[in-house]
Amino acid sequence: MHTRTVFFISDGTGITAEAFGNAILAQFEMEPRHVRLPFIDTVDKAHQAVRQINHTAEVEGNKPIVFTTLVNMEVLRVVQNGCKGMLLDMFGTFVQPLEKELGIKSLHRVGRFSDVSKSKAYHDRIEAINFSLAHDDGQSNRDLEGSDVILVGVSRSGKTPTSLYLAMQHGLKAANYPLIPEDFERRQLPPALVAHRKKIFGLTINPERLSEIRNERRPDSRYASLENCRMEVSEAEAMMRRAGIRWLSTTTKSIEEIATTILQEIQPGRLVY
Amino acid sequence: MHTRTVFFISDGTGITAEAFGNAILAQFEMEPRHVRLPFIDTVDKAHQAVRQINHTAEVEGNKPIVFTTLVNMEVLRVVQNGCKGMLLDMFGTFVQPLEKELGIKSLHRVGRFSDVSKSKAYHDRIEAINFSLAHDDGQSNRDLEGSDVILVGVSRSGKTPTSLYLAMQHGLKAANYPLIPEDFERRQLPPALVAHRKKIFGLTINPERLSEIRNERRPDSRYASLENCRMEVSEAEAMMRRAGIRWLSTTTKSIEEIATTILQEIQPGRLVY
Repeated sequence: MHTRTVFFISDGTGITAEAFGNAILAQFEMEPRHVRLPFIDTVDKAHQAVRQINHTAEVEGNKPIVFTTLVNMEVLRVVQNGCKGMLLDMFGTFVQPLEKELGIKSLHRVGRFSDVSKSKAYHDRIEAINFSLAHDDGQSNRDLEGSDVILVGVSRSGKTPTSLYLAMQHGLKAANYPLIPEDFERRQLPPALVAHRKKIFGLTINPERLSEIRNERRPDSRYASLENCRMEVSEAEAMMRRAGIRWLSTTTKSIEEIATTILQEIQPGRLVY
Repeated sequence: MHTRTVFFISDGTGITAEAFGNAILAQFEMEPRHVRLPFIDTVDKAHQAVRQINHTAEVEGNKPIVFTTLVNMEVLRVVQNGCKGMLLDMFGTFVQPLEKELGIKSLHRVGRFSDVSKSKAYHDRIEAINFSLAHDDGQSNRDLEGSDVILVGVSRSGKTPTSLYLAMQHGLKAANYPLIPEDFERRQLPPALVAHRKKIFGLTINPERLSEIRNERRPDSRYASLENCRMEVSEAEAMMRRAGIRWLSTTTKSIEEIATTILQEIQPGRLVY
């Protein structure tokens, strides 16, 4: 049995409550049980949540940790007054001081997404996902002018997840192209990309790590062999150096870290925030 | 000129700092300028950040709002002592009380991602993205047993972005299948799915909205016509009802909201947190 449970309570999806809570929990060496309670948007649901938390407190003999991003004051009050957990309340803590500094009242509005069908930013984000999918792995040369960034690198260097992440989280139209033996023989970037050099960003990877990743997909193949991975990576890096392309190594980096670095480098004007 | 600038300062990617700040800013009717300062992980970089913030304060004649998730105490001190903005400090505020409640010291560790190449959860997440891509739009019937969820719905009901989101954020292997006129004629789910009924989740959409979305891609086509959209949606909903499949309408929902609802319904055991 777990001895400590963490609850994430939100009027909306609970995504912010979880991001908030996980960031703070990452500072502690512990593995608590996680319970997400999204869409707690009525006093009734708040009472239910409080009962669940207090039941857990009794069973475990420990205060549950409760992260909330509740906006509705009535709902928040129920949790504040009834809950036997330790309450870490993002909005209650920060919104009031900010009201004072800004000299305006807060809206107590739930969630970032009211009616997305009316939101231009949301529409652009979905378009970016569609674009990035259609331009995954060099599938299409159409409308490359429309792209915000074009990732290049050897197969399995991290291009596809990074492109999709840039589209999904930042609304960037991110194409990606593999660098393949034919390119190395010609010692030049794929021809379709030459006109878009300024948008190109390269991903490279440690050959040993690449060989591991490729071996999971095609065990004992020439494609996955360390020798071949060394050759491809060395050719790709030489090509990016010659072409004056910015690049980074993905070996120990998450897609979030890769994406953040790319954004800092290319500084797209039309970032969706 | 903007009269108010908001800074997001982090030792890591700044994703949490932004999520934190944006959630709170969404409570105010204002459109400040956003400046993200990621990877502020040395005292030197902290001094630079402080100079930038203080310069902004002078130019705008208003305190900048500064959201931080700085973990390194030395770096945080520089910002706390030197910065003329209004500091909203997530870790400083919540980590100490939590240390007391838990009776353990925090790690002051930067970011969620140390070396992802050694993380099983990260590996599974990348695998989930690959799976979901390979099973987008009914491309493959292979290994459907391996899926965590199978989304079905008419073309452009939101299946693809939702599948990719479930994979990227939650590490779920999410396949998706279109419901097409052939299925409506047979009045049955696509044959490959019948064995996996318990994992199926349906997406539907208001026909007027669907017609709008389809018209952007294929203007004035029969595919996009309101009449055809009405027919397809009505057939799809009837089919899902007959098959006893859980479903929701995506019309006014974001992919985050759709994904949260699906997670609540299917409650996968192997959620990545």
